[in-house]
Amino acid sequence: MNLDEIYAPVKEDLKLVEAKLGDIARNDIPLLSQMLEYALLNVGKRVRPALTLLSSKFYNYDLDLLVPMAAAVELLHIGTLVHDDIIDNSATRHGKPAVYRTWGSNSALLLGDYLFSRAGSLATTTENTRVIRRFTETLMIISGGELREASTHFEPGGARDNYYKWISDKTACLFVMAAECGSVLSGCPEDQVLALKDYAQNFGLAFQIIDDILDFVGDESTLGKPVGSDLSEGAMTLPTIIYLQHNPEDPLIYKVIVERDKSLVPEAVAKIRDSGAIDECKEIAREFYGKASGSLDKLPDCDARGSLNALVAYVIERNK
Amino acid sequence: MNLDEIYAPVKEDLKLVEAKLGDIARNDIPLLSQMLEYALLNVGKRVRPALTLLSSKFYNYDLDLLVPMAAAVELLHIGTLVHDDIIDNSATRHGKPAVYRTWGSNSALLLGDYLFSRAGSLATTTENTRVIRRFTETLMIISGGELREASTHFEPGGARDNYYKWISDKTACLFVMAAECGSVLSGCPEDQVLALKDYAQNFGLAFQIIDDILDFVGDESTLGKPVGSDLSEGAMTLPTIIYLQHNPEDPLIYKVIVERDKSLVPEAVAKIRDSGAIDECKEIAREFYGKASGSLDKLPDCDARGSLNALVAYVIERNK
Repeated sequence: MNLDEIYAPVKEDLKLVEAKLGDIARNDIPLLSQMLEYALLNVGKRVRPALTLLSSKFYNYDLDLLVPMAAAVELLHIGTLVHDDIIDNSATRHGKPAVYRTWGSNSALLLGDYLFSRAGSLATTTENTRVIRRFTETLMIISGGELREASTHFEPGGARDNYYKWISDKTACLFVMAAECGSVLSGCPEDQVLALKDYAQNFGLAFQIIDDILDFVGDESTLGKPVGSDLSEGAMTLPTIIYLQHNPEDPLIYKVIVERDKSLVPEAVAKIRDSGAIDECKEIAREFYGKASGSLDKLPDCDARGSLNALVAYVIERNK
Repeated sequence: MNLDEIYAPVKEDLKLVEAKLGDIARNDIPLLSQMLEYALLNVGKRVRPALTLLSSKFYNYDLDLLVPMAAAVELLHIGTLVHDDIIDNSATRHGKPAVYRTWGSNSALLLGDYLFSRAGSLATTTENTRVIRRFTETLMIISGGELREASTHFEPGGARDNYYKWISDKTACLFVMAAECGSVLSGCPEDQVLALKDYAQNFGLAFQIIDDILDFVGDESTLGKPVGSDLSEGAMTLPTIIYLQHNPEDPLIYKVIVERDKSLVPEAVAKIRDSGAIDECKEIAREFYGKASGSLDKLPDCDARGSLNALVAYVIERNK
């Protein structure tokens, strides 16, 4: 299934989310408006808004609550990307210069703050305090997780656990919040909210593992960013961790990650890409897909359930 | 009245807020915990938490709601300071190195994000959607206002209006939110909520004008930061605007603000300091004090009202 087919049950509603993002981008501060248009419109696959809407499709599907909620989730996500790009010194995002490369780090920092606040304000329009609280907590987990990761020392033995904790905080956490908020707003029974959260957690982990694989095997023009970015930034993602577990004597990874010798990045990328590590990562991502699928079995059978399942499969097979 | 006397009606409750901030600083992520302790504890005068509590003293004073609310207000404020210091390249804050100077810009950026989220999460514990919404919107006004200011061109004619809009967004906005949230949580009648908001708006403007005066006339060791910081950053605050209105032919300000000739900052500071601009600014701050006082007349007479009035007077006379 392609993305259009997967999104079919919420296709018209995603257009409303898109229109909401368009409204938000129109602002009486010209600089802010320009930045918002650039950062918000015509970017990305809208996976998180789709997840929010699809998670709500099982019970009372109230667009007055769900459209702002889905838009809020996307705003929060984009806010974190804007700040991440500053932190990671990333040149490009979605195939165009990162916000801070165009408007400078100071304005990008303020744009991120604005997006967090705009997102929170939108989430409060649901007037559901559980949803609002979960929403406001999410950035705490994301930023706290990044600080934990920043202070983690190179330790191959604990690297895999650290990695799962890290990607759970930075990626799965937002997926889980989207699924929880969507389902809670639809009046979903609690056991099924839990099933959707479990689905979203495994979806998020699979999503990030594929993202981390693409940083080794992706095509730069399709990907919209250079390969090897993670190694360049000293980030130890799953392909590197698995390579290192299979090749504990190879000093290359230590030199790249700890000594930050960037000249060795191309060699490390090639070695990891051509090792069995990538296939192992894909296998692990497929296992998370299996768990996500299993969680969906607890939900009523309907188009949305099929789409949620297909969405993970799509993500596993994506090349950008 | 000194600050202890002014804070007397809420003295014990401010200790609870302090304890709450201490709890928040204890975190299972060591790096985050260190940064939180540094940024949150033993810093500042806690004007905003005091304002929150004092604004609630007229009606139903429920500490279960007000202590988290007051702590949330302080967290949001400190989050903005952490980000501001990165943006302004400020060396010191509260007499010690700025957070980003100690832990680097990336960690400081994440700490700010964490603080915003922690603040929002704390505000949601009130379960009052009006309060939560006002709270979440505040950072939107602050960051949007900074982006507006960043894109404002040098234009002496409109400078004073721009300045009031700017300090209203960056400073008064948080004071107004504190007063509104405090009073709403106490079940204050709407006309008195409005009076307290009006008070806080004028208080906030006076507060910022005094802050901007101190950047010219303050003592560096008392102030905990170098004088002339605003001019160094190209920021046109009220003393500069008034000086320029009285000396439209002096090219010095244009050279400092537009051409960013930092070598001329000490000369510009001296000229502005020794002109009548500072006294004029003080007079304007006193006018805002007068308006703030006038708004308080609409509230029941009690110790808290006396303290709110004395707090503005204290701020007007402060030297740090």
